[in-house]
Amino acid sequence: MAGTLHILGVGPGDPELVTLRAARILGAAPVFAGFAKRGRPGHAFGIAAPHLNPAARELRFEYPYTTDLPVEDPRYPDAMAAFYDTSAATVAAELCEGRDVALLCEGDPFLYGSAMYLFDRLRGAHRVEVTPGITAMSGCWSRAGAPMVHGDDLLSVLPATLPAAALAEALGRCDAAVVMKLGRNLPKLRAVLDELGLTNRAIYAERGCMAGERILKLAERDNAPAPYFALVLIPGRRGVR
Amino acid sequence: MAGTLHILGVGPGDPELVTLRAARILGAAPVFAGFAKRGRPGHAFGIAAPHLNPAARELRFEYPYTTDLPVEDPRYPDAMAAFYDTSAATVAAELCEGRDVALLCEGDPFLYGSAMYLFDRLRGAHRVEVTPGITAMSGCWSRAGAPMVHGDDLLSVLPATLPAAALAEALGRCDAAVVMKLGRNLPKLRAVLDELGLTNRAIYAERGCMAGERILKLAERDNAPAPYFALVLIPGRRGVR
Ligand SMILES: C[S@@+](CC[C@H](N)C(=O)[O-])C[C@H]1O[C@@H](n2cnc3c(N)ncnc32)[C@H](O)[C@@H]1O
Ligand SMILES: C[S@@+](CC[C@H](N)C(=O)[O-])C[C@H]1O[C@@H](n2cnc3c(N)ncnc32)[C@H](O)[C@@H]1O
Repeated sequence: MAGTLHILGVGPGDPELVTLRAARILGAAPVFAGFAKRGRPGHAFGIAAPHLNPAARELRFEYPYTTDLPVEDPRYPDAMAAFYDTSAATVAAELCEGRDVALLCEGDPFLYGSAMYLFDRLRGAHRVEVTPGITAMSGCWSRAGAPMVHGDDLLSVLPATLPAAALAEALGRCDAAVVMKLGRNLPKLRAVLDELGLTNRAIYAERGCMAGERILKLAERDNAPAPYFALVLIPGRRGVR
Repeated sequence: MAGTLHILGVGPGDPELVTLRAARILGAAPVFAGFAKRGRPGHAFGIAAPHLNPAARELRFEYPYTTDLPVEDPRYPDAMAAFYDTSAATVAAELCEGRDVALLCEGDPFLYGSAMYLFDRLRGAHRVEVTPGITAMSGCWSRAGAPMVHGDDLLSVLPATLPAAALAEALGRCDAAVVMKLGRNLPKLRAVLDELGLTNRAIYAERGCMAGERILKLAERDNAPAPYFALVLIPGRRGVR
């Protein structure tokens, strides 16, 4: 019998923020897989570690682009597509031999997750089940003690990789917002928020729910580039008092 | 020693989509609390049931407005504020006697959750900890097999209770969207989506991750009012192939 691909959200960082369902699947799967930057331990692997079947085998898919092609390079989409093709083929081989595979994803798989590209490639010919995860934004706003979205509020979730004009347009009309993928885009984002008069409402959250967590007002954060695991929260207005 | 208020997200419906952390806290807390409509069992209570400390005592806060005041009534905000004041006082009394209280919330507490109003009232004088939950939208897009947000996509999350013009404005420029709180607003939402040419991309999800789940293309859904536990998903465009 063919195996099942379980795409598993493992949450923002704390291994206790894994669901009972994900923990059960991780404890049973003979193979687990995940994406990581070259030479890095891989965040999702660390979150899943305490829950893994001790006899399970690891498949590690290392992104090709870290040192090679920048996102702007016209060859980037082809390189990524080839990388996902190869990764999907490796997973498919396990499934065909009857082994279930648990694919680990930070946060929730279908919110800016690489697992979506394996889902698209494998769902036609294989059994694929998706287990949602606690998103990084939920983890961060819980730790920040920042109630986010009330009553009729509109919440916008967007990446700081957008051009400044697009950031300004989206942030100018939302009630509440989450800006992901900060990195070296933080100074650009801050300039947009200053312009819109939103900086004083903004909260900066780095490594939320994991070791080295840092949560502070954005206004108190210096302008050095942010690490990969960082986002900005703009809580919405209050509804009922 | 004073007790701690644990505000716990219990996810969209499946008791296995509770986090290990929420399950641990539920198994230990001597008191649990939650909101419910008058005469209804209360969704969050059902999700938490398998995880509760069998000796725990229940506090049930019944919304005042179901049969009394419509949301549009000018007395509605006062009635709700008084309701949250009383509920907060009941919780505070337990905390002062040294008992921890687990406050149950569907989905994630800080995304359109009533628990935010108790958080605001109690955080000043009491220890309050928030445990994030799997949101209804994550549960629904996982079950629908609908990868939602890619690359530079903007995700908008909004309630169908907004006026048609506001819905059209927000939905007209998002890449991906989630529309919550459907109920009798479904025909209004559908008219807006038709106008924008978005109906064919939209997925209707009712009671996602729970008994009676129904997930289908919105175009195949009739126009009868939706139940409370229903939302519409509009998945974003693809990034990398
Ligand atoms: C590719 S996206 C993946 C999002 C993930 N699938 C989710 O559901 O949250 C990566 C971005 O998520 C955010 N992120 C992930 N984990 C985080 C954490 N523990 N603290 C703060 N931000 C985090 C950062 O903005 C990071 O750039
Ligand atoms: C007051 S909001 C609470 C949202 C919740 N705190 C969350 O994080 O998802 C209630 C709305 O959530 C959506 N919802 C909650 N549970 C759902 C489910 N199991 N299936 C579909 N929609 C659901 C519906 O749109 C409903 O009107």
